[in-house]
Amino acid sequence: MDGILERIKSPADVKKLSMVELERLAEEIRERLITGVAKTGGHIGPNLGVVELTIAMHYVFDTPSDSFVFDVSHQAYVHKLLTGREERFHTIRQPDGLNGFMLRTESEHDSYGAGHAGTALSAALGMAVARDLAGGKEHVVALAGDAAFTNGISFEALNNIAAQTRRLIVVLNDNDWSIDKNVGAIAEYFHKITANETFSGWHDKAASLIERFGGKAARHVARKVEEAAKGLIGPGMLFEEFGLSYYGPIDGHNMPLLIETFKFLKQQNKPVVLHAITQKGRGFQPALEKQKKFHGLGPYDPESGETKSAGQKTYSEIFAESLTKLANRNDKVVAITAAMPNGTALDLFRPHHPTRYFDVGIAEEHAVIFAAGMATKGYKPFCAIYSTFLQRAFDPVVHDVALQNLPVVFCMDRGGLSGDDGPTHHGLFDISYLRSVPNIIHMVPKDEDELQDMMYTAMLHDGPSAIRYPRGTGPGATPKPEPVALEIGKAEVVSDPGRADIAILGLGAMLPEAVRLKEMLENEGFSAAVINPRFAKPVDRQCVADFGSRCGLLITLEDHVLAGGFGSAVIETLSDLELAVPVVRIGWPDSFIEHGKVEALRARYGLTAEAALSKARPYLKKMMEQVLAKHS
Amino acid sequence: MDGILERIKSPADVKKLSMVELERLAEEIRERLITGVAKTGGHIGPNLGVVELTIAMHYVFDTPSDSFVFDVSHQAYVHKLLTGREERFHTIRQPDGLNGFMLRTESEHDSYGAGHAGTALSAALGMAVARDLAGGKEHVVALAGDAAFTNGISFEALNNIAAQTRRLIVVLNDNDWSIDKNVGAIAEYFHKITANETFSGWHDKAASLIERFGGKAARHVARKVEEAAKGLIGPGMLFEEFGLSYYGPIDGHNMPLLIETFKFLKQQNKPVVLHAITQKGRGFQPALEKQKKFHGLGPYDPESGETKSAGQKTYSEIFAESLTKLANRNDKVVAITAAMPNGTALDLFRPHHPTRYFDVGIAEEHAVIFAAGMATKGYKPFCAIYSTFLQRAFDPVVHDVALQNLPVVFCMDRGGLSGDDGPTHHGLFDISYLRSVPNIIHMVPKDEDELQDMMYTAMLHDGPSAIRYPRGTGPGATPKPEPVALEIGKAEVVSDPGRADIAILGLGAMLPEAVRLKEMLENEGFSAAVINPRFAKPVDRQCVADFGSRCGLLITLEDHVLAGGFGSAVIETLSDLELAVPVVRIGWPDSFIEHGKVEALRARYGLTAEAALSKARPYLKKMMEQVLAKHS
Repeated sequence: MDGILERIKSPADVKKLSMVELERLAEEIRERLITGVAKTGGHIGPNLGVVELTIAMHYVFDTPSDSFVFDVSHQAYVHKLLTGREERFHTIRQPDGLNGFMLRTESEHDSYGAGHAGTALSAALGMAVARDLAGGKEHVVALAGDAAFTNGISFEALNNIAAQTRRLIVVLNDNDWSIDKNVGAIAEYFHKITANETFSGWHDKAASLIERFGGKAARHVARKVEEAAKGLIGPGMLFEEFGLSYYGPIDGHNMPLLIETFKFLKQQNKPVVLHAITQKGRGFQPALEKQKKFHGLGPYDPESGETKSAGQKTYSEIFAESLTKLANRNDKVVAITAAMPNGTALDLFRPHHPTRYFDVGIAEEHAVIFAAGMATKGYKPFCAIYSTFLQRAFDPVVHDVALQNLPVVFCMDRGGLSGDDGPTHHGLFDISYLRSVPNIIHMVPKDEDELQDMMYTAMLHDGPSAIRYPRGTGPGATPKPEPVALEIGKAEVVSDPGRADIAILGLGAMLPEAVRLKEMLENEGFSAAVINPRFAKPVDRQCVADFGSRCGLLITLEDHVLAGGFGSAVIETLSDLELAVPVVRIGWPDSFIEHGKVEALRARYGLTAEAALSKARPYLKKMMEQVLAKHS
Repeated sequence: MDGILERIKSPADVKKLSMVELERLAEEIRERLITGVAKTGGHIGPNLGVVELTIAMHYVFDTPSDSFVFDVSHQAYVHKLLTGREERFHTIRQPDGLNGFMLRTESEHDSYGAGHAGTALSAALGMAVARDLAGGKEHVVALAGDAAFTNGISFEALNNIAAQTRRLIVVLNDNDWSIDKNVGAIAEYFHKITANETFSGWHDKAASLIERFGGKAARHVARKVEEAAKGLIGPGMLFEEFGLSYYGPIDGHNMPLLIETFKFLKQQNKPVVLHAITQKGRGFQPALEKQKKFHGLGPYDPESGETKSAGQKTYSEIFAESLTKLANRNDKVVAITAAMPNGTALDLFRPHHPTRYFDVGIAEEHAVIFAAGMATKGYKPFCAIYSTFLQRAFDPVVHDVALQNLPVVFCMDRGGLSGDDGPTHHGLFDISYLRSVPNIIHMVPKDEDELQDMMYTAMLHDGPSAIRYPRGTGPGATPKPEPVALEIGKAEVVSDPGRADIAILGLGAMLPEAVRLKEMLENEGFSAAVINPRFAKPVDRQCVADFGSRCGLLITLEDHVLAGGFGSAVIETLSDLELAVPVVRIGWPDSFIEHGKVEALRARYGLTAEAALSKARPYLKKMMEQVLAKHS
């Protein structure tokens, strides 16, 4: 079929379409999303929810002159389809393909990138103020889900908007969900608005107006829309208190209504918020039925929505099961998530200990301080927060937890390269930003069983600790029935030939590469010890002293940036010990890593045994020469 | 005079006092605060504002069984006076004396420490939930200034309170100021409430009730108070929307009213917020007249409020003057502060460029993302945020600024030990948490003139950069009329004898110690080069290669923790260069440093030329032995 979508080479083409064609375009986009993401995986639910919104925005506004800022920006697939990236859409989230989020380097229509929630209003306000200063007239539109309002940054921005600009359009994309069902007072507040009886009445009235006048008498319609909307000012009180004019709620799938409303809003001389009600997963029955699953996922069957069964348990699942076990025996153990019960697998913990499970919304700072408060009263909070998201609570980690030496445990899922999601989601900095903080312990398990032991160790420890583990599955080590407490700061020597020339320290997920490297070295005639460091902080000083004094070379491998990372901690330790043994450090370079498959990116950036061997080559040569010299 | 204050050994003694004695106690405390802080310096204004509030809280509640959480906790002096620390009060903020903030290790009555704003509600909710889980009955009271509500964490907490506990008391201490006049919609909202005509009417009525019944018929009065308060529910809508019951506004200096109100509130079976209007600096005319100055300051004359004139310009002042100069010539330069126009000295910039000055409230995350938004439109935002407070925006620095490689400049005042304020305010982690982040440049000036050059360099650079400079004054180098651009990543060799045995890298404020160390080494017969590194990132590779290959020892000095700091970056560089020269690293150890005088703490923790010499001793001995061996 000769589709409309294929003809859209830029937003200018959207503006040429009739209302009937726009509706057809929406249908085609839905079809394309469902079949496309079935193959690539991705955030299908959120994108199905914003099809009409995105089309209407591009119909009314002019990017790149106007700017769209999407919160989190996982809902930008439709935007990508309409801004010259339709032909490459099948490459989304694939190696060297389109990124799954907005990316300034990908298109001039992507005015702002994001992968973390709550940033859109602040960034949009910055753009609006810049425009005002420069005397510009272009529009800035921020699109944020209701979940963004569980995050404090959104309120910091709200507090500033009215004082700083008279022209900013905020679209509240209200679908009642973040990844999981939203929690807290704000969710209830939005629900109260939409449950308001006058809503449906007004909506019908506005819709019938649009129907009657079509696109022709836009100005007249706009006035009517305003009148109707203003009658409803009550429900938007929260936004009105912050000085924004509130419009809505309106049906976020009614394209003519959206178009007329945006036309009206762009004429306003005051900051406005449009409350649009959308349905996550709209047009795809499996996504409507399983909102959580279809927020973001891997490939699936485009008919049934079935995904391949996972098989081996993920680190997240092992974490949740281990925590349930710990909580069964210790009633001071509590679990905290920042809107990620599914991603962290804490939804497996919840049914067992519903009163000791806390989902606080996308509020990482609050999560950590709340945990600190509980810890002062004798509780053992386990905060399950992805490595990249714990960056958002760095100061609470320092100021509330570590400084007061409170026994909060940070379980950092997605510690290491996260793969398909790309640079906003890679967890590559946590060793650097945590190991400078006094009092905290930083652990990295080699496998699932050791994760359980580390959680147990953290539970017993009377101070803060952090455990990082990778996304997805590990080596597949079934946890022991009973966890064992590890000695804090003690590495595990995996293999030691006794008179090792080289010691290889393979942190966490890099341990298998360390073992491979050892074998490669042995093939070249070197003997090597393999060490599972377990602790990125405190580094096992004795172990480093031992191998540092009897080996000619140390090699560290970590799924983390080199700057300030584990290898850096090892060379600091050697320096403190006044040992001059050289160290070859393997880890991620000092640049942001694109999205892609973990294995492929490791190979590309030299996080392999082969790369380690080649980096060690000059030292190996020297060692060999010394041996030869002895015998000559 | 035989005072009441001297007889208060614990909060139990407060409860024994009559209303007349309580009022006298308030007077004595004010007197004590004014004369005491005149000698020690400190947060006089905020504490004069909460005298009655704190007395009333201790009269009604029972710490440590009940818990008080004070936001920022610089307003805890009265609390300290009432909880067994009256005799030591003259030592506040003095070396080895009382801390200027709440400190869990200082008293069992300090249930939660803080120095950064916006954390109280989250911590208090954690305590309340812990109490609920444990089946306890004790009370948790959070006292937060209106400024705390410009910070997003407060809203993250508000979003969770009603869903998670039925018993939490929030006291909104509304004095219209943070350190500076509050900004934004929230400040206006609170103002609107207090300007409400019904307020004064209700207040008079409640006060007369209290007067009539005294403390005797408390229950009856409480009912009346409730009735009166409930009539005013309208103004507190914002809190009501979040599910908290709002009471007030009431006069925060009316002790009988406060006492009766607290008695009433502690009986409620729902989370409540009490809006108390207080006067910052109450009872001390100079503090009332100069709110900003008397927020927190050094010693002053207790009669006139005069402080010693500062004399030499501070780094903050040089920063503000340099920024004004840059902004005079480049209309893309803008300045952003998070409620610190005074502390950062941006109030000197503001009159010159009022439209390019932005105070966003205590909202560091928003500040950084707002800056990123402006940078996408061609502006050059200078974010003036203390090193310790930039920790709060670590993720925006990574996710919004560095990942998008936007030219935002972070001017980190108070980079290094901050002295009297103690561990919540020391800026000792910024090199560690920033240098792992790709794209960012990190600079540290040796003096005021170099600060100006670095700001100019940052302005010209098309990417993110950070500059850290210490609290207070520097060496006193008047900035050149015209700034000069520095070569990025290029160190300055201050002195080089050509055939140096040792190279000393003295970062920023430690450069004078490096020079002293050089002289001490020369006295012992060693020749040493002195280097001003300028860049903590990127480290000058060529310089390190040069001195690393021709010296027998490198010594690094930094006003920063050793873990992951500048010295660590140097040994990483040496390792990458395959150079085996030993490095002695001087910096702060891996523990939180208490408050005190900078010089004394440096001496205590070994951040001096003397300590460096002693740490270098084993290497010096070895070098000397090698020389002797050559000649024997």
